[in-house]
Amino acid sequence: MDRDQCLALDAEDPLRHLKDEFVLPDDVIYLVGNSLGALPRRTAERVRQTVEDEWGAQLVGGWNHAGWFEQPFTAGDRLAPLIGAGPGQVVAGNTTSIAVFQAVAAALRLRPDRRVIVSDTRNFPTDHYMVQGLAGLLGDYELRELSEEHFGEAAVVLLSEVDYRTGARQDVSSVTAKAHAAGALIVWDVCHSVGAMEVDVSAGDFAVGCTYKYLNAGPGAPAFLYVNPRHQATAENVLTGWYGHAAPFEFETGYRPAEGIRRFGVSTPHVVSFAALEAALDVWERVPMDRVRAKSMALTSLFVDLVGDRLELASPADPAARGSQVSLRHPDGYPVMRALIDRGVHGDFRAPDILRFGFAPLYIGYADVHDAATTLLEVLDKELWREEKYAARLAVT
Amino acid sequence: MDRDQCLALDAEDPLRHLKDEFVLPDDVIYLVGNSLGALPRRTAERVRQTVEDEWGAQLVGGWNHAGWFEQPFTAGDRLAPLIGAGPGQVVAGNTTSIAVFQAVAAALRLRPDRRVIVSDTRNFPTDHYMVQGLAGLLGDYELRELSEEHFGEAAVVLLSEVDYRTGARQDVSSVTAKAHAAGALIVWDVCHSVGAMEVDVSAGDFAVGCTYKYLNAGPGAPAFLYVNPRHQATAENVLTGWYGHAAPFEFETGYRPAEGIRRFGVSTPHVVSFAALEAALDVWERVPMDRVRAKSMALTSLFVDLVGDRLELASPADPAARGSQVSLRHPDGYPVMRALIDRGVHGDFRAPDILRFGFAPLYIGYADVHDAATTLLEVLDKELWREEKYAARLAVT
Repeated sequence: MDRDQCLALDAEDPLRHLKDEFVLPDDVIYLVGNSLGALPRRTAERVRQTVEDEWGAQLVGGWNHAGWFEQPFTAGDRLAPLIGAGPGQVVAGNTTSIAVFQAVAAALRLRPDRRVIVSDTRNFPTDHYMVQGLAGLLGDYELRELSEEHFGEAAVVLLSEVDYRTGARQDVSSVTAKAHAAGALIVWDVCHSVGAMEVDVSAGDFAVGCTYKYLNAGPGAPAFLYVNPRHQATAENVLTGWYGHAAPFEFETGYRPAEGIRRFGVSTPHVVSFAALEAALDVWERVPMDRVRAKSMALTSLFVDLVGDRLELASPADPAARGSQVSLRHPDGYPVMRALIDRGVHGDFRAPDILRFGFAPLYIGYADVHDAATTLLEVLDKELWREEKYAARLAVT
Repeated sequence: MDRDQCLALDAEDPLRHLKDEFVLPDDVIYLVGNSLGALPRRTAERVRQTVEDEWGAQLVGGWNHAGWFEQPFTAGDRLAPLIGAGPGQVVAGNTTSIAVFQAVAAALRLRPDRRVIVSDTRNFPTDHYMVQGLAGLLGDYELRELSEEHFGEAAVVLLSEVDYRTGARQDVSSVTAKAHAAGALIVWDVCHSVGAMEVDVSAGDFAVGCTYKYLNAGPGAPAFLYVNPRHQATAENVLTGWYGHAAPFEFETGYRPAEGIRRFGVSTPHVVSFAALEAALDVWERVPMDRVRAKSMALTSLFVDLVGDRLELASPADPAARGSQVSLRHPDGYPVMRALIDRGVHGDFRAPDILRFGFAPLYIGYADVHDAATTLLEVLDKELWREEKYAARLAVT
């Protein structure tokens, strides 16, 4: 497919207008939206309002009048449709790591007869690390790598819908059914799928995710935790902060858990960061996720086709079996990525040899994909990455 | 003391110029800085820079180029002098509740021979709740209320330098010495003292605090955790997120703790909220804390003198024995506070009968105190609070 054909596809793209919602530098093709989403155009003003009009003018009254106190729950309710959940099932705040700790600890208490935790080593490492810490804290738990043969002994299975390195996608529905059939609970990490496809964790038990990747809520934006309604009356939140108390303003000395999703609140929300989340969610109010997924698959397929067999594909070849990213292997992946970034095509590198390219369908178009692939092929064909200046190591999340 | 004398004191106040650093509504005397500090004038621009110039222009590159990745540690180093600590001893991020969990869990592991946790019920409830959750998670721990007679059995003692309700101040130095003499470790909560007085937790083992009260870092701003260097090689962080890993960008499957204070990192910082913290810390760079404390004691004493015996004092009568707040009892405290707020004097109410007034020395002056006391006496003398519109309950943190 040539560049004119790509421009024609862009002209017909029903999501094309959404690119105007984002601030993007003119000279960059930004293929790292799977790590940090781009800045929505409306966010700066929304954050300014929170700082100046709410904090500055209402001072402590903002907790009530500006709705700060309810943010974890109002933002949670707005996130819910993006993961197939309903109102009162999602709480926002803290971080993915903390949400993993809450979800897995709650699941273990719901299955006290089992002492095995299955955690996929392909999860983003913090998930796996948090479970190691929890297991060490509790003692007497065995951690096993993901394999369906362990489901029959597992109290809980923790895995990611989309693998952060390869983009490989799990079938949430069938894996959930297998875990349940074997008597295990399941915690889904949807960090790398939410906002890129139609996510539905409603058959699962818990889910966690972040909002700073495809959802575009900004660096270190609040995470979220989903708790299936069937567990809300019995599941325990082990991080028993005052936000999960039945009557936080009674200032009682004893902890009494709230009902419903409020029980999973921990602490005071990071209000200024929530402002950016709220602005990001405004954009999503008007986005049909089936079209996002269709465009995502078309973009990743186009990139794979254009790169051809020039590099080994680390992602699944079937677009339905991957997320909105393409990962390619190159033994000198780091300098290749540096050379590419120098030419305005921003992807990232994951050791030991993976070049990652994320395609956020809200602001990436077909011509962008064409130009990115062309530049990559030029860097490879002309061996531009061999320049000495590209050799130094630089960490990029 | 009459109003002219108060104005004369304001004119001589060496901290007077600092009021210009803050945005405050003209018609409000804001005595809730002990709950949510006022907005520093420089904050809006600093937050705008982070959103537009960093996130918007640098995108994912901000993690390195804008210093986001290091924020927990750079902000921690800037917070350290405010609590008597040095570089490499404080990590910022998450919330006070999470920091309490980390500190108490680490202390318990350092004293495996003891099974008693002493937690002051006068702590802000979330501290006490978090410890209850932790004890429940670990099992086999007994939670006792604060009393020196329990120190000899305690693994750890958790208490606050300043009581959030009464403003009563603990003597950090002597209580720390008593805990240590009895073989217990100690965790100090400095939420209600940091930024109001010279805090020194360096003899203690751990400390936690928030930055949104006297430090003025904004609603839900990042909290902080201090770990005494003598424990850094042996203390364990049970919340083993990737930020505490020895090599977070190696993406290993096994958790290996970092050296030093980095071990106590958990997760990706809330970058936009950190921007407001950084702006708030700029103000503190130029503030002599001994003068802050001297003015604080003068302000609270003036308020107590002006109110006289019209209301029962819930705070200690000796200004050296209290923080930067005055708490007064009134059986109808809630409508009294509503009537007062209606007249531009903002304090808050804590059930069952406490009127709290916080005096942030950076932006509250002597004439403010005079006017607040005069208005309070008028509300009481004329029984203005009996108007029906003041009866409804409204939660204020």
